[in-house]
Amino acid sequence: MIEYEGKAKQIIPTAEPDVAIQRFKDSATAFNGQKKAELEGKGEINAAMSAAAFLKLESAGISTHFMGLENARDMRIKRLKIVPLEVVVRNVVAGSLSKRLGLEEGVTLKFPIVETYFKRDDLGDPLVCDSHVFVLGICSEETLAELKTRALQVNSVLGPWFNEAGLTLVDFKLEFGFDESGELLLGDEVSPDTCRIWETESGRRLDKDVFRRDLGDPMVGYREVVDRLGITIGGEHA
Amino acid sequence: MIEYEGKAKQIIPTAEPDVAIQRFKDSATAFNGQKKAELEGKGEINAAMSAAAFLKLESAGISTHFMGLENARDMRIKRLKIVPLEVVVRNVVAGSLSKRLGLEEGVTLKFPIVETYFKRDDLGDPLVCDSHVFVLGICSEETLAELKTRALQVNSVLGPWFNEAGLTLVDFKLEFGFDESGELLLGDEVSPDTCRIWETESGRRLDKDVFRRDLGDPMVGYREVVDRLGITIGGEHA
Ligand SMILES: Nc1ncnc2c1ncn2[C@@H]1O[C@H](COP(=O)(O)OP(=O)(O)OP(=O)(O)O)[C@@H](O)[C@H]1O
Ligand SMILES: Nc1ncnc2c1ncn2[C@@H]1O[C@H](COP(=O)(O)OP(=O)(O)OP(=O)(O)O)[C@@H](O)[C@H]1O
Ligand SMILES: [Mg+2]
Ligand SMILES: [Mg+2]
Repeated sequence: MIEYEGKAKQIIPTAEPDVAIQRFKDSATAFNGQKKAELEGKGEINAAMSAAAFLKLESAGISTHFMGLENARDMRIKRLKIVPLEVVVRNVVAGSLSKRLGLEEGVTLKFPIVETYFKRDDLGDPLVCDSHVFVLGICSEETLAELKTRALQVNSVLGPWFNEAGLTLVDFKLEFGFDESGELLLGDEVSPDTCRIWETESGRRLDKDVFRRDLGDPMVGYREVVDRLGITIGGEHA
Repeated sequence: MIEYEGKAKQIIPTAEPDVAIQRFKDSATAFNGQKKAELEGKGEINAAMSAAAFLKLESAGISTHFMGLENARDMRIKRLKIVPLEVVVRNVVAGSLSKRLGLEEGVTLKFPIVETYFKRDDLGDPLVCDSHVFVLGICSEETLAELKTRALQVNSVLGPWFNEAGLTLVDFKLEFGFDESGELLLGDEVSPDTCRIWETESGRRLDKDVFRRDLGDPMVGYREVVDRLGITIGGEHA
């Protein structure tokens, strides 16, 4: 039984009420679902990369929903009540930030910035500032501050991990949620679907922008990311 | 000599380097200059209303650039280095907030919110969050906090002033700047061009939305606002 069918993943219940399976699909979408494709191998790469990222983060003291891989595309996760915000960290100007602020793509920001987007497909996931978050009752002031701090901590862990592999973590999107005991955990995924990753030397795009902008076979970049990070596909290291 | 020709006002230098004349024009524009008209009498109404609002704010202890009216459309102002942010306060859902958050126009917010927009016509004056402001170097953290506090103070003064006249201050836009001694002052204007003002009883629009949305003769509402607030046109009370 599929409980939730998303654009890139499925959430499948288990016998334990506070545990679910997050299944990574090969489906790719962009521009709020307007552009679609099946990318063979994407699900397994994203599952493997997310698993490796969650392990990396856990060992740095950042709590996540990750409980292990069941197989190449299925991840056991702690079920969360997701805070309906996409928490975006940016190190380098790209995508919508370039358009919003009129800054050139590729410019390194003076410091990493955190943005929040309201998870509402029907509104196109709009940028929201703190006062919007509070007036909508999305979360408390304390939780919002904590989300931003955690997101920057994630950046501090993942950034160097990528750098050592010759990769630049340009920006990425996180989702957080509360588990049944009220603890705030990092959820969702960390993959080339949700991170902008450039080859440091060349600036070559190795992420979903290759799909968004028709820059070639997206899977070439996705595979290069996991290869460079030394991640094995297939779930055997879970 | 005109030093700056804006869409709704001109800035004209005076013999004193730290003083300028702000001349209120009859020109009206909307949608970032795409829609244009001449609205006879608008300049004088906006000058009179801005003067009255600045006096009201000054007497409540909020410092402004206002130095007096020279004549019906010319305001003597302290010259400011404008912080390139439009500081918007909202009490009731309208306009872009309705679209952004999917809230119905007319819903009273649980508390007033403050938004900041980057003053960049070429970018369409985008919404910016705190981290954008800092990474762009627009102003310091201290200044941004002060802008928001002041904007809410302005709201606390203007809101009741409107309410007593049977008007609802739905939202408004402010600009602030630093004078030559480094003091932060409220600048620009406070008028039906920059405030959304509804008749409380009927919800009838008395502001620039009448022009934006072709709801009738905009000057009828503008005149009603100044009449209800007991403001005389012509500069004689300056
Ligand atoms: N630990 C978790 N517990 C419950 N739900 C989760 C957890 N982690 C992620 N989710 C949610 O599971 C769904 C994953 O599916 P997917 O990412 O494909 O959705 P989507 O199409 O992107 O839509 P959405 O806008 O909701 O993310 C998302 O809605 C995500 O918020
Ligand atoms: N005290 C002041 N000193 C200097 N400039 C000021 C002062 N008060 C307002 N201004 C600026 O004077 C101009 C007034 O013109 P107007 O409002 O018509 O411009 P505009 O077409 O709306 O363009 P802008 O986007 O710059 O506001 C604005 O640029 C405003 O920021
Ligand atoms: Mg998702
Ligand atoms: Mg202006």
